Amino acid sequence: MKIATFSVGEDQHIGIMQDESIISLTELSAEEFPPCLKTFIERNNELRARVDQLIEQSENDIVTFPLSDVRILPPLTQPEKIICVGLNYIDHCKETGMEPPSSPVIFSKYANAIIGHNEAVEIPVNSNEVDFEAELAIVIGKEAKCVSEEEATDYVFGYTIMNDISARDLQFSDGQWSRGKTADTFAPIGPVVVTHDEVGDPHNLKISLELNGEMMQDSNTNNLIFTVPKIISFLSQSMTLKPGDLIATGTPPGVGMGRNPKVWLKNGDQMNVTIEKIGTLSNHVK
Amino acid sequence: MKIATFSVGEDQHIGIMQDESIISLTELSAEEFPPCLKTFIERNNELRARVDQLIEQSENDIVTFPLSDVRILPPLTQPEKIICVGLNYIDHCKETGMEPPSSPVIFSKYANAIIGHNEAVEIPVNSNEVDFEAELAIVIGKEAKCVSEEEATDYVFGYTIMNDISARDLQFSDGQWSRGKTADTFAPIGPVVVTHDEVGDPHNLKISLELNGEMMQDSNTNNLIFTVPKIISFLSQSMTLKPGDLIATGTPPGVGMGRNPKVWLKNGDQMNVTIEKIGTLSNHVK
Repeated sequence: MKIATFSVGEDQHIGIMQDESIISLTELSAEEFPPCLKTFIERNNELRARVDQLIEQSENDIVTFPLSDVRILPPLTQPEKIICVGLNYIDHCKETGMEPPSSPVIFSKYANAIIGHNEAVEIPVNSNEVDFEAELAIVIGKEAKCVSEEEATDYVFGYTIMNDISARDLQFSDGQWSRGKTADTFAPIGPVVVTHDEVGDPHNLKISLELNGEMMQDSNTNNLIFTVPKIISFLSQSMTLKPGDLIATGTPPGVGMGRNPKVWLKNGDQMNVTIEKIGTLSNHVK
Repeated sequence: MKIATFSVGEDQHIGIMQDESIISLTELSAEEFPPCLKTFIERNNELRARVDQLIEQSENDIVTFPLSDVRILPPLTQPEKIICVGLNYIDHCKETGMEPPSSPVIFSKYANAIIGHNEAVEIPVNSNEVDFEAELAIVIGKEAKCVSEEEATDYVFGYTIMNDISARDLQFSDGQWSRGKTADTFAPIGPVVVTHDEVGDPHNLKISLELNGEMMQDSNTNNLIFTVPKIISFLSQSMTLKPGDLIATGTPPGVGMGRNPKVWLKNGDQMNVTIEKIGTLSNHVK
């Protein structure tokens, strides 16, 4: 199931994304499906079955909006945590001149950074070196503390795309990466969250980023150094993961800082991040 | 004004801390003062005047709880951001063997780390080197983006205490500090938030930490390298600060890792962090 948060005029909905349209779950039952994906995730066990039941019962009353009539919103706007894993593809480590780490390298973004599909990434006034990073992001489904790698997948609700926008000058002058990673608009996510069952194996998905139509990153999640279960188990040893938490799993090679000459984002640039089975997250720069 | 979030039995309140008791604002007007400090902060302009008015009007009906009957809760539980400034006292830089930075070093905690006064700090299963850090924390009052140092103080709601608990083994093996800083229970805050007008100058406050009755840190915020206005202006250049955001301003010398032999927290330890004009934040270790 591909779930989107979206608006039509002033009204916000959650719904199921189809090829050219979205079924509004909020229209089917606003009480059960308030327009907030975090609520859906928290009540996933009871709600998943209700979706099929409601759609069957209401076959003729289903409210479907053509995609051209809706505005896609970020699937989540206030996760407790946006956790990022750095240096998680061997070839990306090489292009940054850093050694592949022996355990996951963790850094943070805050919710101020979140924007949705088709929204604008803004260059902050204090940076001249803003870069892109295509990433598969895990959406946590249940509270997880001290879980093993074997059981970790049970705590995944689904997956989405994150473009881990990075101000390289701030990131590296600080040493600590957080400030360069969490400027406003630096966490485009979406356009949808695809449930775990529909994605299947998260370690065999093509992942790519096109900048102004040119392929810049082109890899597969089978190149991840630390897998999804490893990352979840590792993090949960010290922190409780919560429903709706986002974990970006790292970026493959091809980012702007790894090129000669280096490529920095500028006004008018168009980025499309595509991950197999999830879709394409598009954002421009202003 | 010293504001606390607290519970009496099952009921949660916000109120005004006095010497031996708390006036419940929630009892005075639950509609205007729901038991959530973030709401109070967001509506501060209208609510501050209402507090005085309500207390005057209701002189005989004021519900006051003796401190011994209440449980103090963390003043805030879901700030969008918990931003920490590292290496912000010269003598603390020396004891960690690091150079004083030329601009503020920023790292993150998430809300999973928050606990309140008298709650237990828990040693995570994957750390043997857990340390304490007494810090003055800023509570942001209004949205701030690209504000100057001159206007920065207008965006402060007040101040509280944070004990920036740190797993040194995780912090330094990762290089990036976040994971070692945001384990569950690693952000004790409180017991109260003291409004900006009552604190006055935040750069002349005694700050100390006692561990099991022994003075470990004993300094004054006049030793801060980067001041409160500098930190707010600096951060706001790239990220929008929001009402309720917490910014911990760094710790003075005397932490466990700077001692010979090093001192790590262990089961049963008792920490008291005291900051002049704010109070004492007490937490034990289990």
